[in-house]
Amino acid sequence: MTLTFAPKNDRFLRALTRQSVDCTPIWLMRQAGRYLPEYRELRAEAGSFMALASNPELACEVTIQPTRRFDLDAAILFSDILTVPDAMGAGLYFAEGEGPKFHHPVRSEADVRTLPIPDVEETLGYVTEAIKRIRIELADRIPLIGFCGSPWTVATYMVEGGSSKNYAIIKKMMFQSPDVLHALLAKLTETTVAYLDAQVRAGAQALMIFDTWGSALSGPSYREFSLRYMAELVDRVNRNSDHYVPLVLFTKGGGGWLEDMAATGCDALGCDWTVSLGDAKRRVGDRVALQGNLDPGALYGTPESVRASARAVLEDFGDGHGHVFNLGHGIHPTIDPANVEALVNEVHAASAR
Amino acid sequence: MTLTFAPKNDRFLRALTRQSVDCTPIWLMRQAGRYLPEYRELRAEAGSFMALASNPELACEVTIQPTRRFDLDAAILFSDILTVPDAMGAGLYFAEGEGPKFHHPVRSEADVRTLPIPDVEETLGYVTEAIKRIRIELADRIPLIGFCGSPWTVATYMVEGGSSKNYAIIKKMMFQSPDVLHALLAKLTETTVAYLDAQVRAGAQALMIFDTWGSALSGPSYREFSLRYMAELVDRVNRNSDHYVPLVLFTKGGGGWLEDMAATGCDALGCDWTVSLGDAKRRVGDRVALQGNLDPGALYGTPESVRASARAVLEDFGDGHGHVFNLGHGIHPTIDPANVEALVNEVHAASAR
Repeated sequence: MTLTFAPKNDRFLRALTRQSVDCTPIWLMRQAGRYLPEYRELRAEAGSFMALASNPELACEVTIQPTRRFDLDAAILFSDILTVPDAMGAGLYFAEGEGPKFHHPVRSEADVRTLPIPDVEETLGYVTEAIKRIRIELADRIPLIGFCGSPWTVATYMVEGGSSKNYAIIKKMMFQSPDVLHALLAKLTETTVAYLDAQVRAGAQALMIFDTWGSALSGPSYREFSLRYMAELVDRVNRNSDHYVPLVLFTKGGGGWLEDMAATGCDALGCDWTVSLGDAKRRVGDRVALQGNLDPGALYGTPESVRASARAVLEDFGDGHGHVFNLGHGIHPTIDPANVEALVNEVHAASAR
Repeated sequence: MTLTFAPKNDRFLRALTRQSVDCTPIWLMRQAGRYLPEYRELRAEAGSFMALASNPELACEVTIQPTRRFDLDAAILFSDILTVPDAMGAGLYFAEGEGPKFHHPVRSEADVRTLPIPDVEETLGYVTEAIKRIRIELADRIPLIGFCGSPWTVATYMVEGGSSKNYAIIKKMMFQSPDVLHALLAKLTETTVAYLDAQVRAGAQALMIFDTWGSALSGPSYREFSLRYMAELVDRVNRNSDHYVPLVLFTKGGGGWLEDMAATGCDALGCDWTVSLGDAKRRVGDRVALQGNLDPGALYGTPESVRASARAVLEDFGDGHGHVFNLGHGIHPTIDPANVEALVNEVHAASAR
């Protein structure tokens, strides 16, 4: 089966579905972000991260910014994985220098029971509106990626009330009241299915699930509390829009679980920088594409060292279809955009067939 | 070859060298620490972490504390991996609530060139003195573990000036001036060899190298900047005291690199909670013992759930020699000691041959 995709540059969608490409496509996690002076300017004007993310016009502009500077093969919606719990009434806010927080953490059986499953078109309409604007703005030059957090990863913020070091509260819930945690994860899954469906209807052409904190779990707990709900998303989200919508699963630190992740039926796996793409290809490359996995820290080097690092990742993946170049995690805020340009151009040049 | 060891309970040393044991030995990373009220009391009296660690009498007392409460099969020296850079003049201090810091970060070629390799007997005599006292106090009931940080992990603190999220400064050094970083790592290795030799002479009966931040690196960088220097430690440290001194290598997040780690010639590998011990045994179990790997968060459960979690780890390892039970990382400060007691007793009971 050969899938066809609408965008003029469909390299990214073809690689995600392991079809032949003229060169390896590249995009970067957090490519719309603080390392770009034009982003910092808009962010300062808007006053807060959420003021940017919840304004479709600004979210659209920020999404497009990196695609003007660099020859990127995909754009990714500018948003945050925590818009979902915010829509569920948890009250997201960003304390300066402290990361995300919630006014109403979810910690008891009653908290979970009374948690609403929101109408996403209503509560997250600013996201679908942004997607529609971005699609118009992109004019089918390159495809647009929609995304969400994994239910487990989102739950860690909801239960802990923000970022966490030891996951003390959610681990206590997991080991003392697993049914309460499962009920929360089920509600998050329900909301997230509707959210991703809405993103696809609005125009998202690929989807990515970010399981940033999956590796806070042991293997058995990962399968029970994280992977199981991601598999439900893969299964239930309607990904047959005007074109097929490929889906990428990414568990940071989950290099030991690639086989389990591939078995969900997703199209591609995000790999962090600790994974060897060559090894990963041998393990799961006949089932899924691989996305990654340059150490984000390599961008602190010189343009020359960045190019060498890029070539090493391409060589590690080796021949064959199904590689989307990316970083192993989000780009850091102090990176010089000149190094990003060197990276993007080198990936295309060094991989040209 | 059957090794014999002096301690009355030599279960830990026997398991580390993959000999038969009557039941699986257990100790816990950070077992001497804040979750114990008697530790918190002494820590408050001493006024600071370093006041405890640098006083041989207090360091001895703190080391012994958990062995009074629990049926642990090893004691571990109460100290910190950052005593080494402190001895090299970097000026360690602990900012309340902020973790370790250095007055004199090492960032330039000149900083590295002028960095002294200290006389460890002189600058770290408080550690060897503590070891001697602990050995007397333990009276050969159970063996004593000495330890150090890996050169790479210690270097991250020295270069960044403390803890780091993105490793921006050391990654810049790594990609822009790799020779400067190698020179620093060589000096750290030199000092650490002398430090571990001194620990063995003072009475340490096993050694562990903590590579807490090895997984901040890609595979190729890990081998070049972290593993290579750990291999040098394994090779050079004199571990033929009155008895053989087994050595454990632990890279948190390094589950993908166990084969490389085993090839250093160490005796055992520490495994974090994301690793399956059964898989790890199939990969490297004919060469090394395995230490780990209960999720430290499992101790937030009930005594009953803790016991079930302990049995799951034992079952994952399965039959055969060479398992030392431990957590996948250090015990968290808010854990109830009653759960630790449930864990230690269950490991012994459920694994009794």
